[in-house]
Amino acid sequence: MTGFVLRRTLTVEWGDCDPARIVFYPNYFAWFDELTLALFAARGLPLTALQSERGMLGLPLVDAHASFRSTAAYGDRLDAETGVAEWRRTSFKVRHLLARDGTPIVEGEEIRIWAMPDPQDPKRIRPTEIPDDVKARFA
Amino acid sequence: MTGFVLRRTLTVEWGDCDPARIVFYPNYFAWFDELTLALFAARGLPLTALQSERGMLGLPLVDAHASFRSTAAYGDRLDAETGVAEWRRTSFKVRHLLARDGTPIVEGEEIRIWAMPDPQDPKRIRPTEIPDDVKARFA
Amino acid sequence: MTGFVLRRTLTVEWGDCDPARIVFYPNYFAWFDELTLALFAARGLPLTALQSERGMLGLPLVDAHASFRSTAAYGDRLDAETGVAEWRRTSFKVRHLLARDGTPIVEGEEIRIWAMPDPQDPKRIRPTEIPDDVKARFA
Amino acid sequence: MTGFVLRRTLTVEWGDCDPARIVFYPNYFAWFDELTLALFAARGLPLTALQSERGMLGLPLVDAHASFRSTAAYGDRLDAETGVAEWRRTSFKVRHLLARDGTPIVEGEEIRIWAMPDPQDPKRIRPTEIPDDVKARFA
Repeated sequence: MTGFVLRRTLTVEWGDCDPARIVFYPNYFAWFDELTLALFAARGLPLTALQSERGMLGLPLVDAHASFRSTAAYGDRLDAETGVAEWRRTSFKVRHLLARDGTPIVEGEEIRIWAMPDPQDPKRIRPTEIPDDVKARFA
Repeated sequence: MTGFVLRRTLTVEWGDCDPARIVFYPNYFAWFDELTLALFAARGLPLTALQSERGMLGLPLVDAHASFRSTAAYGDRLDAETGVAEWRRTSFKVRHLLARDGTPIVEGEEIRIWAMPDPQDPKRIRPTEIPDDVKARFA
Repeated sequence: MTGFVLRRTLTVEWGDCDPARIVFYPNYFAWFDELTLALFAARGLPLTALQSERGMLGLPLVDAHASFRSTAAYGDRLDAETGVAEWRRTSFKVRHLLARDGTPIVEGEEIRIWAMPDPQDPKRIRPTEIPDDVKARFA
Repeated sequence: MTGFVLRRTLTVEWGDCDPARIVFYPNYFAWFDELTLALFAARGLPLTALQSERGMLGLPLVDAHASFRSTAAYGDRLDAETGVAEWRRTSFKVRHLLARDGTPIVEGEEIRIWAMPDPQDPKRIRPTEIPDDVKARFA
């Protein structure tokens, strides 16, 4: 990760776990989504501002990946680190690392695009060059 | 329940269950919501039509209740029965019965209101008399 | 609520909300479950201790109810208050109040039983008198 | 995908979607998990049999990936195809394709290991060679 890194502690709740007594894996992706939005909010770009000030709909995802290193269970506190791993012209990669007491639990990446409504058809979106002022906030 | 009853079979998935190896209880309410929308769709009133043809936002919930009779586990097939238990002037009660091989698992009720956007302030809603044609569809 | 009250702040995440842009209602029950376990943990009775020290499986729910007073949306911070509203012989009622800036959002109750594995058939549970030392912790 | 392909239709429910009015992406992974278990069940290897007859705990995931091609919304019916894309010695890759009316929505892969409890420490698992009879069922 380059530049700003968001750090947050997540608590594994009972309902996050499955009958194997470990986190049901789709919940890690729910945390990734939460962390990415929190990352942008922490840099002064909450989703509400992206929508109201820049006319964006969100930060559409094109790719998500997770590697599961170890399991986590009810009551575990997970230390999350989230940052932008790479800025491309119209997309960017977010990296997430979740660990428990220093033991890696999950590593994840999301590739999201910077997109604006298509002026020809506002119900569609069009990838758009990421503004420099956005990238600068994460330096 | 009076009038039309929707019958549907639900399958309990692994991710619906918690470490006690039974359905994590909030998921029953997710099924209730799904069943209520399916009930209206089955009577020719899908949510999309309520929105596009009648200008409604949805079927806002004011009250939800469940009694848990027995537990359900991964792989169980639950027979659901859903119907309107009572029509009031601007609200109605939906009843849900979930059973496995005739054994009651959960009974639930939702009270929802018939509401339209407030003409004074379209971001707010206002309870509205339930149209007779709506009630007639469930007879 | 009588006696000890747990206070916690919940944040509404994007994924907690539905296309009506408000919290998908089953998620309130997921918070209720989380809050009840946190209440017991805060009084020195984490679920892990109930299991390892008292041989219990959990705090089985027999009844859940919510009244929805107002809606909550992405980014809202909800102040939760949770406490035991009533102790009965083998069951108890937990009450949850969620508010945003003093505005009630949801009120909920759960009725849970104090249960031990049935000595005749350890896969079944049997309601058991709630120990005085448990009730005393919440005074 | 080689060999047997499971085909199933999924319906997007209201609660599966977020305020952008599209499927909240972690739910695709919940469907992947459901589809993988259904794939094994369809070949005579339900999770319950893997546990009771072979002493396994489950099919632990080490890697999950999804590429999002287009969005899906409430009421959409998605045609899912799931199969084993590759058998390795102690792990295998499952591929999932979800489409709506022939339009690709999501492609996903999961890498899972074949694992047995470690005889030295039954709380841990150890990757184990995938039995030929298992692979043969998917031919």
